Amino acid sequence: MPELMSHSREVLDSLLDSTIVGHVAYVDEDGAPGVLPTAVARFGNALIVHGSTGSRWMRLVSGVPAAVSVTSVDGIVVARSAFESSLLYRSAVLFGSLRVLAGTEKTNALDALTDKLIPGRLNEVRPNTTKELAATLVLSLPIDEWSLRVSDGWPEDADSDIIGDAWAGQVRFGRQPVTVLDAPDLRPGIPTPESVKALRGTD
Amino acid sequence: MPELMSHSREVLDSLLDSTIVGHVAYVDEDGAPGVLPTAVARFGNALIVHGSTGSRWMRLVSGVPAAVSVTSVDGIVVARSAFESSLLYRSAVLFGSLRVLAGTEKTNALDALTDKLIPGRLNEVRPNTTKELAATLVLSLPIDEWSLRVSDGWPEDADSDIIGDAWAGQVRFGRQPVTVLDAPDLRPGIPTPESVKALRGTD
Repeated sequence: MPELMSHSREVLDSLLDSTIVGHVAYVDEDGAPGVLPTAVARFGNALIVHGSTGSRWMRLVSGVPAAVSVTSVDGIVVARSAFESSLLYRSAVLFGSLRVLAGTEKTNALDALTDKLIPGRLNEVRPNTTKELAATLVLSLPIDEWSLRVSDGWPEDADSDIIGDAWAGQVRFGRQPVTVLDAPDLRPGIPTPESVKALRGTD
Repeated sequence: MPELMSHSREVLDSLLDSTIVGHVAYVDEDGAPGVLPTAVARFGNALIVHGSTGSRWMRLVSGVPAAVSVTSVDGIVVARSAFESSLLYRSAVLFGSLRVLAGTEKTNALDALTDKLIPGRLNEVRPNTTKELAATLVLSLPIDEWSLRVSDGWPEDADSDIIGDAWAGQVRFGRQPVTVLDAPDLRPGIPTPESVKALRGTD
């Protein structure tokens, strides 16, 4: 695949802000590699992940070297040969140690996660209880050491293929449409909130 | 997040067949974790990845323990509190050693990758050349040791939240719309091929 390294913090932030899930890689107790998907959110100069305090993998990744990959597949580069065809993507890998957050940092980081997934939702629901906060582990990775690759080009076919009859171009993926469903136990008369309506977008 | 372990090979295959990119985690020469996204395709009882023979990470992951995560984010469970809100997802992690393929196995596995990304495209383009095949490393991971989690439920709010005024439900993501663009150097008169038209779907 053609790969383009980028050093743009702006492009990195845009990727982190628009991608729901990242993959956290770690080395387990036996020295074997492990990887798990988890919701990520950027909180200033850090990437935030969270989970249950009972989660084995979150304890495993706390305070030790980790690598977190955040990827957006934006389409397909359709070349005149299978070999030259590739993906349109943005891909970041962040390296560092995940630090356990506490106090105000913890609550603010959790709010950032919620606000990323469902912008505006925080204004519509009660705050987290002390018990809920105690059951939640929030980890923070500084956005410090990272690599970023952006593939956003056209097919690079050889002249011998260009003069042929095969088509070439891009297939670009658009924004996913969303369907909103009421919970079966929703009390009658409770309307879809503004935050959820906004997720539907304008289409 | 509520997590449901699944042991369904059918659900696993469906996830692997419908998800373009997986994340390969490995332990590098210094014992540090690494992770990289790459296109994946199921080829019978194996998961296939490919790259350039010059790729450092592909050489690093050949023949040593690796973990490959394939994840689909299918929506958001919007609960009556931020704490109970979560993601709808399917997530698999496969464990094992990636084996370098050669000969017919290699060409067939590469074809499976192309056919997954752009079904039918193989009939529209020339075969790979000997030189292209020599420049490509194809790795295969047996689908043998894996874990699968499927989150597809409704919010599980406490009664004290259910009697309140907050909304609850699901926001489900639909299939991404695609836009097809001709390459700038496309020769006039070459129509969009059937394989690419099919990616547009019926909408």
